[in-house]
Amino acid sequence: MPVVISSQPKSLPIREGNVYAANCPSRSVLDHVTSRWGSLVLVLLLARTLRFGELAREIGGVSQKMLAQSLQVLESDGFILRTVYPTKPPKVEYSLTPLGREVAQHVQALTGWVEQNVTTILEHRENMQKSQD
Amino acid sequence: MPVVISSQPKSLPIREGNVYAANCPSRSVLDHVTSRWGSLVLVLLLARTLRFGELAREIGGVSQKMLAQSLQVLESDGFILRTVYPTKPPKVEYSLTPLGREVAQHVQALTGWVEQNVTTILEHRENMQKSQD
Repeated sequence: MPVVISSQPKSLPIREGNVYAANCPSRSVLDHVTSRWGSLVLVLLLARTLRFGELAREIGGVSQKMLAQSLQVLESDGFILRTVYPTKPPKVEYSLTPLGREVAQHVQALTGWVEQNVTTILEHRENMQKSQD
Repeated sequence: MPVVISSQPKSLPIREGNVYAANCPSRSVLDHVTSRWGSLVLVLLLARTLRFGELAREIGGVSQKMLAQSLQVLESDGFILRTVYPTKPPKVEYSLTPLGREVAQHVQALTGWVEQNVTTILEHRENMQKSQD
């Protein structure tokens, strides 16, 4: 009977990339999903499908150019689906793909944690500042 | 019997910040924990306490200057503890605070997901490219 040698326990998911390697393409994906506007777009689309103008209104401080660029990058990675309806003027809607939902849930966990703990963090910053004065 | 009206279900954690508001300080915290080097530092320190040189070796492509800056920012936010031992030369170790462990776990979930799914994402990028050629 052959002995099966597994280099990785079955319970661990297979890592296809390594974000610690300088030339690994996983780094560019991480950049896209953690970018200022990309991260906020992903979390908004978890709630529902949105039009460009709706996204622009929800995200304080984003320019039309930066939003368009962020949407394009996330679409290219397969996270976002862009649907164009042949109306006049054309209606364009953005939604998450199943892959996009997965990553957006992790991003939401992170942004949610930051929103919940910002007061503690700001207090710490102030105390550090005081102790250095 | 009085009717208790709760504006927020008790099961939901209180949000102290709003990352969708342009001037909310939670945005700077999100920047720090999702920054290229900051995110990788947090995940490495989840495994164990590390010295500066060890961190620099583990993170491909980081410069000493960028690593030092990232560590300082994460220390100021209260995520990282810097311990200096009075040896000659002084030994400096970096570890996570309890707050740092919490946020690092969310970052690790995200980087892990990206590492596991990078092949699918790269395939999608190639197909998008082909369909546009």
